[in-house]
Amino acid sequence: MKKPARPEIPRKTIYRLSVYLRCLQRLKENHIQTVSSEALARAAGVKPPQLRKDLTYFGQFGTRGLGYDVEQLAKMIGNLLGTSRLQPVVLVGVGNMGSALLSYRGFEQEGFELIAAFDADVDRHRDRDRPPPVYSMDRLPEVVEKYRVRMAIVAVPASAAQEVINRLVDAGITGILNFAPIVAHVPESVMVNNVNLAIELENLSYFIQQ
Amino acid sequence: MKKPARPEIPRKTIYRLSVYLRCLQRLKENHIQTVSSEALARAAGVKPPQLRKDLTYFGQFGTRGLGYDVEQLAKMIGNLLGTSRLQPVVLVGVGNMGSALLSYRGFEQEGFELIAAFDADVDRHRDRDRPPPVYSMDRLPEVVEKYRVRMAIVAVPASAAQEVINRLVDAGITGILNFAPIVAHVPESVMVNNVNLAIELENLSYFIQQ
Repeated sequence: MKKPARPEIPRKTIYRLSVYLRCLQRLKENHIQTVSSEALARAAGVKPPQLRKDLTYFGQFGTRGLGYDVEQLAKMIGNLLGTSRLQPVVLVGVGNMGSALLSYRGFEQEGFELIAAFDADVDRHRDRDRPPPVYSMDRLPEVVEKYRVRMAIVAVPASAAQEVINRLVDAGITGILNFAPIVAHVPESVMVNNVNLAIELENLSYFIQQ
Repeated sequence: MKKPARPEIPRKTIYRLSVYLRCLQRLKENHIQTVSSEALARAAGVKPPQLRKDLTYFGQFGTRGLGYDVEQLAKMIGNLLGTSRLQPVVLVGVGNMGSALLSYRGFEQEGFELIAAFDADVDRHRDRDRPPPVYSMDRLPEVVEKYRVRMAIVAVPASAAQEVINRLVDAGITGILNFAPIVAHVPESVMVNNVNLAIELENLSYFIQQ
């Protein structure tokens, strides 16, 4: 896969842009139209120079003495992150964690639509009448193609995860949120973000003993 | 609060120890008694020198040519991480994400026991007959003290999160897994790990556009 043509934005900046976007959305809800870099930085928990540096990737558009236009900045960040329109996402694995994610209603508020789930054992998903539908893995390529899905959430056991990830990559998925406690092997063109709640808790557990 | 007396282990090492522990547990399940640093490193997705360096915090105990004793190493890491015995954890917030976490059955397998949940509106938790119990926030100090809880999961909306975190800290909680999209302000003696699924998805969403 080719290198991206647009300027390479550091990964940590991308994370911070998500945080800025949330702060801007809260300002919008409170009918606030402009915000200074100091105030936005404080809300996001970063230093003002950091914020200003992060926003230079969009060129100059804050007005000196007036600050940023809340609506305009939110729109630009949303466009950059690709969340201005609803992104379709599939989930693989409806065991413990997968079921929890199925019952999580927060994705749509954030611009993601869980359009379908997949499991090796379709029958174990009891609540089949509630969306999204749960299919067998055979139907993965068809669904991914039909809805032009690029993102998937993996919530299968460690032993099945690499095989599932291979199938996702074959089907055309390029972004994976992985809950399985494995180090996934993927082509360079595929991005994997790992979330492991047990490891986060274990990490805390170490530090609270200090 | 005083600085820790034991050697300062880098935070990334602590995360990797959790990964090694999972690999060792899988080896144990397969009745494998010893493992070379190369094989364990490969399973954990790190380079062998990294693994060996991480394990030097335990002193020398691998046997040259024989590798590590799986059971012994797992036990040492488990002791260090404080997960050899079940750690009590409380959850605050049983909205979207909190309910999902309540229905997640994976914590106990990893050494954590969700002993109680708290919410501003106790009545909205419909499934009150299934453990853990859901209490009003007033009962937080009592429960934390009774069960000697040190760790909490925060899954309340952003607008309520700092206030909830203040109350947790006042009650004696020193480790917080925070799902709320805020930058929490806590005393230095309190550790906060943030998990934000929406931000992880948004981050992927940016990269898949490349």
